[in-house]
Amino acid sequence: MQSGTEEPWNPSGVVSLLTDFGLEDPYVGIMKGVLHERRPGLAVVDLTHAVPPQDTLTAAWFLRHGWHWFPAGTVHVAVVDPGVGSGRDILCAMHRGHAFLAPDNGLLGPVLGSGARAFRVDAGRFARGTPSRTFHGRDVFAPAAAALAGGLAPREVGPEVDGWARLQFPPPRRNGDEIRTEVVVVDRFGNLITGLVPEELDLELSGWEVVLGGQRLPLDGTYADVEVGQVLALVDSYGHLELAVRDGSAAERLGLGRGAQIHLRRRT
Amino acid sequence: MQSGTEEPWNPSGVVSLLTDFGLEDPYVGIMKGVLHERRPGLAVVDLTHAVPPQDTLTAAWFLRHGWHWFPAGTVHVAVVDPGVGSGRDILCAMHRGHAFLAPDNGLLGPVLGSGARAFRVDAGRFARGTPSRTFHGRDVFAPAAAALAGGLAPREVGPEVDGWARLQFPPPRRNGDEIRTEVVVVDRFGNLITGLVPEELDLELSGWEVVLGGQRLPLDGTYADVEVGQVLALVDSYGHLELAVRDGSAAERLGLGRGAQIHLRRRT
Amino acid sequence: MQSGTEEPWNPSGVVSLLTDFGLEDPYVGIMKGVLHERRPGLAVVDLTHAVPPQDTLTAAWFLRHGWHWFPAGTVHVAVVDPGVGSGRDILCAMHRGHAFLAPDNGLLGPVLGSGARAFRVDAGRFARGTPSRTFHGRDVFAPAAAALAGGLAPREVGPEVDGWARLQFPPPRRNGDEIRTEVVVVDRFGNLITGLVPEELDLELSGWEVVLGGQRLPLDGTYADVEVGQVLALVDSYGHLELAVRDGSAAERLGLGRGAQIHLRRRT
Repeated sequence: MQSGTEEPWNPSGVVSLLTDFGLEDPYVGIMKGVLHERRPGLAVVDLTHAVPPQDTLTAAWFLRHGWHWFPAGTVHVAVVDPGVGSGRDILCAMHRGHAFLAPDNGLLGPVLGSGARAFRVDAGRFARGTPSRTFHGRDVFAPAAAALAGGLAPREVGPEVDGWARLQFPPPRRNGDEIRTEVVVVDRFGNLITGLVPEELDLELSGWEVVLGGQRLPLDGTYADVEVGQVLALVDSYGHLELAVRDGSAAERLGLGRGAQIHLRRRT
Repeated sequence: MQSGTEEPWNPSGVVSLLTDFGLEDPYVGIMKGVLHERRPGLAVVDLTHAVPPQDTLTAAWFLRHGWHWFPAGTVHVAVVDPGVGSGRDILCAMHRGHAFLAPDNGLLGPVLGSGARAFRVDAGRFARGTPSRTFHGRDVFAPAAAALAGGLAPREVGPEVDGWARLQFPPPRRNGDEIRTEVVVVDRFGNLITGLVPEELDLELSGWEVVLGGQRLPLDGTYADVEVGQVLALVDSYGHLELAVRDGSAAERLGLGRGAQIHLRRRT
Repeated sequence: MQSGTEEPWNPSGVVSLLTDFGLEDPYVGIMKGVLHERRPGLAVVDLTHAVPPQDTLTAAWFLRHGWHWFPAGTVHVAVVDPGVGSGRDILCAMHRGHAFLAPDNGLLGPVLGSGARAFRVDAGRFARGTPSRTFHGRDVFAPAAAALAGGLAPREVGPEVDGWARLQFPPPRRNGDEIRTEVVVVDRFGNLITGLVPEELDLELSGWEVVLGGQRLPLDGTYADVEVGQVLALVDSYGHLELAVRDGSAAERLGLGRGAQIHLRRRT
C-alpha cells in the first residue's frame, strides 16, 4: 500500500458487464439477479456478451475502448476466463477512478495504464456458500462487483499484487515509407479494424495510403467520399485505421478477416 | 415556433434505443455508458439493435409500432444511419409527449403524425470534444438524449425545421374485390407480416380470404383454429394482416420473405 | 385460501423476463415499455429471450436454475406460450417469496415446490383495451407484472387454482451399477448438460465414471485436469453432470446434442 497516492473510490452505482457467455443461456441474467440481490438499485449495463468463447484478446480490445465512456466510479466486470476452476487469480484493479474485476489472464493489460493498482480477490469471501468451479461470474465476480458498487474500495478486497498478465495487440511495424498492420477486430458491419492508431505514430493522414491489390486508398476518407459499395480507409471512432465499404461489408467484399495484413505506403 | 401550441415536455427518465449496431460489438454498451455518465439514474431500454444494417424501413416499422407503449416523456433514440459522416441532419422531434432523435433519412416519417414538430440537432453541441465521423450514436445521439431526459425541451435543442424525409411502407392496392399487399417484415417466429391493416381499409374480416396457391385462408383465424403445422391468416398484435404457421415458421413453410406479394379476395 | 399460511408479499422492484421472443424483433422492448409505463423505477432483467420457439422444457430448465439467484420479492415473467390465443390459463404463483407469471402449460412445474400457491390471472383485467390474441406478453403479462411489482399480492390477482400442468425433465434411470441419463440442454459453449444431479442420487463422485465409446471419464473432473481439447465430465454450476471439452465444444467434438443418452458405470 503506497500511502499518499491513495485514489478515493466513489462508486457511481453503475456496473458494466463484458463476457463470452452469450445471451442464449441464462448465465448473464443470473449474474444480474445476484447483483440486484446483493445491491438493490444498481444500473447494470451490458458492454457485450458476444466475445467469442475464451477470446481474451477481443475482450481486452472491447474493454479498452469501452470503459472510459462510463461515469467515474463504474465497476467494470470482465469474465472471459478460460482458466476458471484452475488456480488463476481474480484481480480487482483501480484506474482513473474506475474499478475493474477480471481474471489475471492478460485481459486487463491493454486497459490499465501506469498508476493503476491491482488487488487479489479472495474467491471464497464473496460467494453464497462454496463457489462453484465453473461459474465464477455468478459466485465471485457478481457479488464482488456488488460490494464495490456499494462502497467497498478496491484496495479493501484483498492484498495488493505487484504485477499482472498483459496481453498485447499486434503492433504495426514501420519500415521507412512502408507500414504493415493487422486486422484485429471485424465488427458487425464487416468493418476491418486494424491495430494502427495514426495518432500514436504521428502519421499525417494525407501523406499515406493503403495499398490493396491494385487499389490505393487515402487514409482520410469518409463514407460520403465514395459510392455505395466502394471500399474506403478511414480513422474510426476508436481512433484506429479501418477498412470499410459504404453501406456494405468490407470483410465480405475483400474476403479478409482477423489477422489479415494491411499495407500502407507513403504517398508519392 | 407556433406560440399557443406549445406542448410541454415532461421527461419520464426512460430512454429507448433502436439501432442496427447489433449486440456483438460494444457499440450499444458504450452509448449506455455515455447516457449514464451524462445523466445518472436513467432507465435505458433496448427496443432492438438487430435492425438489418442500414435498413431504415425496418427501423421505421419497429419504431412506429413500439414507441407508444412507453410512458409519455420517453426519449426514443433511433440510429440507423447510412448517411453518418455526410451532411445529413439529425432531428429531434416531439410528438404526443414523446421525444424522438433520429437522422433525417425518412425513418421518422411513419412515426410522426400531424402536429409533430422537429428541430435540427447541432452535432457539435453535445459531444465530448469533436464528434467522430462514424459513431454519432455515442458522440451526438446519446449525449443529446441524456440532455432531453434531464429536462431540455426538444424545441431547445436547435432551430425548428419545416419538414423531414418520410419513408413509406408499400401500401396495399385494392381493385374491387381483390387486394394485393406485400410482406413488410418477417419476425423471429417466421411470421409474415404484411402492409395491410384491415381496420384502416374498413375490411370486414369475415368477408375476405387470402388466396395462396390452391389454399384459401379466412382472415379471422386464430392459432387454435388450425392444427400444428397448418398455415393461417390473422390480424396480429400490430393490427396488421399476417400469415403464420401454428407452432412453426410461415416463412420456411411457404418459402416466402420480405417483398412477397399476398393476394386477398372477397369471399363468395 | 388457507388462512394462517399466508406468505407476505414484499416486492423488490425487480422483474425478470424469460421468453422465446428473441432480440431481433422489438417484442421484448415493447414489454419493457409497458412495464416502465405502468410502474416507473422498476429494474427489469432479461433472464434470456433465446429459448427456442415454443420450447417450454428449456424454458422450465432456465427458470428453475435462475429464479433463486434473484432477490426475494422479484416477479419472474415467463412467456413461452404455444397456446396463446387459446383458452389456456395464465397463472400467477407464489413460491418462497418470489412471484411467477406464466402460462399454465407445464413450465412452472419444475420451479414450484410444495407449499407454492397459484392464482388464475384474468387476462382482461390488466390490458389497455382488449388484449390482442397473439401478444399476451405485452397485453397481460407485462401489466400484471407491473401491478405485482407495485405491491399487488399474487393472491389478489384472481381465484386460487388447485393444481397446474407440470413438465418433467427426463429422469436418470439407475440399474444397480449402471445409470443412464440424457442430455437436457446444450449451452453456448457446447457443454452437454445432463439430467443427472449426483447429489440427488447420493452418488459418491469418485465411485463412478462416464463410459463414452472407449473412454472412461471420472465424474470429479475439473477443467485444469485435462489438456486443451480433451473431454471431461464434471458437476456443473447447476449441480448437474455435464460433459465438456476444455476450451472447446463437447457438442461438436462428440457429435452429441439434446436427447443423447449418457452412460455411467460404477468404477471397478
